[in-house]
Amino acid sequence: MSYQAVLDEIQLNINQYYGIGEVATYIPELAKVDPRQFAMTVTTLDGKTYSVGSSGQKFSIQSISKVIVLTMALESLGGDLWDRIGKEPSGNSFNSLIQLEQEKGIPRNPFINAGALVTTDEVIQNAENAYDAIIDFVRKVSLSDKIEYDYKVANSELETADRNRALAFFMKSFGNIKSSVTELIDVYCHHCSLSMTTEELSRLFLFLANKGINPLNGKIIASEYQAKRVNALMLTCGLYDNVGSFAYQVGIPAKSGVGGGIVGVIPGKLSLCVWSPELNSSGNSLVGTKALELFSELTGLSIF
Amino acid sequence: MSYQAVLDEIQLNINQYYGIGEVATYIPELAKVDPRQFAMTVTTLDGKTYSVGSSGQKFSIQSISKVIVLTMALESLGGDLWDRIGKEPSGNSFNSLIQLEQEKGIPRNPFINAGALVTTDEVIQNAENAYDAIIDFVRKVSLSDKIEYDYKVANSELETADRNRALAFFMKSFGNIKSSVTELIDVYCHHCSLSMTTEELSRLFLFLANKGINPLNGKIIASEYQAKRVNALMLTCGLYDNVGSFAYQVGIPAKSGVGGGIVGVIPGKLSLCVWSPELNSSGNSLVGTKALELFSELTGLSIF
Amino acid sequence: MSYQAVLDEIQLNINQYYGIGEVATYIPELAKVDPRQFAMTVTTLDGKTYSVGSSGQKFSIQSISKVIVLTMALESLGGDLWDRIGKEPSGNSFNSLIQLEQEKGIPRNPFINAGALVTTDEVIQNAENAYDAIIDFVRKVSLSDKIEYDYKVANSELETADRNRALAFFMKSFGNIKSSVTELIDVYCHHCSLSMTTEELSRLFLFLANKGINPLNGKIIASEYQAKRVNALMLTCGLYDNVGSFAYQVGIPAKSGVGGGIVGVIPGKLSLCVWSPELNSSGNSLVGTKALELFSELTGLSIF
Amino acid sequence: MSYQAVLDEIQLNINQYYGIGEVATYIPELAKVDPRQFAMTVTTLDGKTYSVGSSGQKFSIQSISKVIVLTMALESLGGDLWDRIGKEPSGNSFNSLIQLEQEKGIPRNPFINAGALVTTDEVIQNAENAYDAIIDFVRKVSLSDKIEYDYKVANSELETADRNRALAFFMKSFGNIKSSVTELIDVYCHHCSLSMTTEELSRLFLFLANKGINPLNGKIIASEYQAKRVNALMLTCGLYDNVGSFAYQVGIPAKSGVGGGIVGVIPGKLSLCVWSPELNSSGNSLVGTKALELFSELTGLSIF
Repeated sequence: MSYQAVLDEIQLNINQYYGIGEVATYIPELAKVDPRQFAMTVTTLDGKTYSVGSSGQKFSIQSISKVIVLTMALESLGGDLWDRIGKEPSGNSFNSLIQLEQEKGIPRNPFINAGALVTTDEVIQNAENAYDAIIDFVRKVSLSDKIEYDYKVANSELETADRNRALAFFMKSFGNIKSSVTELIDVYCHHCSLSMTTEELSRLFLFLANKGINPLNGKIIASEYQAKRVNALMLTCGLYDNVGSFAYQVGIPAKSGVGGGIVGVIPGKLSLCVWSPELNSSGNSLVGTKALELFSELTGLSIF
Repeated sequence: MSYQAVLDEIQLNINQYYGIGEVATYIPELAKVDPRQFAMTVTTLDGKTYSVGSSGQKFSIQSISKVIVLTMALESLGGDLWDRIGKEPSGNSFNSLIQLEQEKGIPRNPFINAGALVTTDEVIQNAENAYDAIIDFVRKVSLSDKIEYDYKVANSELETADRNRALAFFMKSFGNIKSSVTELIDVYCHHCSLSMTTEELSRLFLFLANKGINPLNGKIIASEYQAKRVNALMLTCGLYDNVGSFAYQVGIPAKSGVGGGIVGVIPGKLSLCVWSPELNSSGNSLVGTKALELFSELTGLSIF
Repeated sequence: MSYQAVLDEIQLNINQYYGIGEVATYIPELAKVDPRQFAMTVTTLDGKTYSVGSSGQKFSIQSISKVIVLTMALESLGGDLWDRIGKEPSGNSFNSLIQLEQEKGIPRNPFINAGALVTTDEVIQNAENAYDAIIDFVRKVSLSDKIEYDYKVANSELETADRNRALAFFMKSFGNIKSSVTELIDVYCHHCSLSMTTEELSRLFLFLANKGINPLNGKIIASEYQAKRVNALMLTCGLYDNVGSFAYQVGIPAKSGVGGGIVGVIPGKLSLCVWSPELNSSGNSLVGTKALELFSELTGLSIF
Repeated sequence: MSYQAVLDEIQLNINQYYGIGEVATYIPELAKVDPRQFAMTVTTLDGKTYSVGSSGQKFSIQSISKVIVLTMALESLGGDLWDRIGKEPSGNSFNSLIQLEQEKGIPRNPFINAGALVTTDEVIQNAENAYDAIIDFVRKVSLSDKIEYDYKVANSELETADRNRALAFFMKSFGNIKSSVTELIDVYCHHCSLSMTTEELSRLFLFLANKGINPLNGKIIASEYQAKRVNALMLTCGLYDNVGSFAYQVGIPAKSGVGGGIVGVIPGKLSLCVWSPELNSSGNSLVGTKALELFSELTGLSIF
């Protein structure tokens, strides 16, 4: 069964899952999205792209950007990054501040908000202009010049970012944030607001399936070591409170965002991205999760 | 034994306790204070003042200002204040985020930092200029025009206020802070920096010993109801993690500050203030606590 | 206004508060009690007794027994008891296990369950037969031979004591429980089941109002030092999550039990006990709290 | 490179790691083990066995038994087990009471102590004699009659099991334990004390690499669905606080025990077991972890 046939089969099956989840509402601008949309793209190491649904439609990548700033922070800081941030699952979200207090301002991993604030801080420290550096990185790696920040979404997030400001000041009180919190939160809200298609995102993550090298142009994005580390972190920490269920049901290292996107990596084979705005109770795309389950089932590409 | 004789006796006894505690160092400007200083003042309801030591020496009142903003917030908001803030002891250390998370942004009481941020917020909301309103209140109630903010201390605190900023943004994320956090922290650091003598502070608290009325000029500062409430809160929450020990050993409603001051109230009789900069491990003046123990012992004025 | 007149006035006023609270149901045997009952007794240092309501009616003293085992533990161990147990308020009940974990098995104070398990453990360690020792102590101090354990209540509690067993084993894992947990929980459930009248309980606590000496027969029950400590602990930790409100509204050191009893002490003057089974949301007698508020108001005996 | 060659290469390399870790000491009987021992066995789906070191030496399997009781509980209860126990990583240290309190007595996953107590409870509820049922299961699946409980180790664990008793009573207070705690802890300490060789353990786990079916005799041990679930749980929760690091460095679903054993599964290919008693700071075999890293490196069998 070809990847295109698999995607077509998936599209036939996902309609039944519409209307069960709910679009994220805590960011007003995201709440305006039409909920019943779907797109899915697979990109193989040889550069072939297979898509289904509205794969040219831009959407807000949200927490998927945590993988981007992690990769950039690893690029500049290398293994020393792990002095400022952990590599272990965080348990439940309730624990976020408790854990941060017990562990002296060191976030558990780079995919909880506190952790992504630390990696964003590192990007700011190493770039002349963090906004430019991030968008340049994303455009370069995904080979697309048409990627932009969505300033409406960024501003909407800035208005609801008080808890992230609290996290940032809390870590700063432990000496684990170097930038000004105002700049940090601004950069953070901007990279969350990046607007991309499933095709662009799938292409962006291809280097993680290829030992850190973008197979489309041979450029080294990360060392093999770092690429492996990022994949392992996605599998153990990439899906909020659904890590365990997702690992079992899908079995693919992946990172989700509340905009409804999920990007996954099958090392040595392919990267893929699915998008559908309605979320399950853990904040992951409900239809997207179902689509990835089907993909895993139909291709047998689960790791378990 | 007259109050003056009691104070003289205390002064003879406290020398042995110098050098055991330590001056607060987390605010750089406070760390510069000469540690072996001592002053104590008693003011009775009939307006008589008894002092010993350097009772004309200004010092930083720090957390004692929490009683001031609480009184002002109660004046403007009345009992509705208790929708935004609790009245129970906090158990944990005085600025823990854990409890605040569990209790949805409602601080346990007005004498932990989070609670004092809420009362300060209320003062800002109700004053044209909060800085002026606070200093006017303090000067009026203590009948002294010579009270000023110590801007060096205020600025020093602003530089180490990240944890308080975290608390403020965290409560704001729950909707329990109305002012801008920048202004809030600035006002907060300023009222903590108020510089006063034991004579001024003792006089300032006299209304709490007199059912809310300043006995020196008959002005109503708080209702009898509110004065009683503030006293009860001082006894159960006024001394950080030393509430239980202090209640037993001294038995006087009191509020301490890391500047080394402790103000106490004996309802129906007197108010008093002691100052000595070296602190015990809970952040209360070590010599001051000993002085109050002696006072309680020599006068029999403990409540137990 | 004589104490008898005060009590009569209180009885006239409390009817309106019936039906608001609820009888404790988690111990099946306690749930069977007729809810609309009321009794109140005042005992002055000169031995005079004033009562109103069904003051000859036995009821389950429950957590009031924590004061009994604390006094007994202090008698045998003295100040060393405070190596095994704290003296500070605990914050909220939610924190019980969290705090115990953070503080290495040392309970915050003797009036939370974990703390009373430690004092009970101490009683067991020092008595040939703890059951006999406790009932002998209670009978001796209250000058009543008619006090008994209520074995039905004790057995009912044993059936719902798993959380207390968890607390005991948890502290044992830190080395802070010496007895067997089976015996410990059995003794604990028995002293909670003690069945007494308001007259007996009021008399039992008279030594705390008289510097540790039972004024009725001159016997020393505790040192002045210890009596003062117990009173301070009752004020700061005696009423579950109502410590702050109760301190303000009543202003009397007191200890409550879920059987509906509350015992209070006014040092140098009197002890008193009120009983009515319906509880407020914090587990204190609702009518009893109202009665004590009225008592404080009518006699002016509040400490604030 | 043949598996035997890989194992030989590993053995040549691990000597340098002796003396860095420490043998577990909290169970007195385990502390007596000679620390510098090593064994490793690989069993492929076609039944071939490759070993190196003292692969015939029995050792205490400890927490590896959690996979055994989980498999048995799934066999009898099926998916309903997940009403009593979660499937997500725990974040906190492996026997924290805090999470259990927040989540009403439902442990986060079957590989923390609380979770394994629930699966053991389920085994007790469904077996005539749990001790016999467990050892029968282990002997049957590993095709070895020579497996026994080590009663000395079991008794040693019973003496230090107070924290586990606390966990059990705590869950019982939420209604999530059905057996008597005395029996539960006894069975639990016994299955932890099972004494096995790397050859036996490797063979025991072979069904997890083969969709639930023991390839050596065709017997169905678990459904494909359940086998997949257990593997995913091992990858996300199998190594205490080292899940993230292990996932990255080894990339094999695995379960460790403080006896120094680690069992791993590569679905569709093989199962393997390594043993060496010295532990790293997270409680996993230090030399064993290094050996598995080398295995992953030399064979390229990591999943990332």
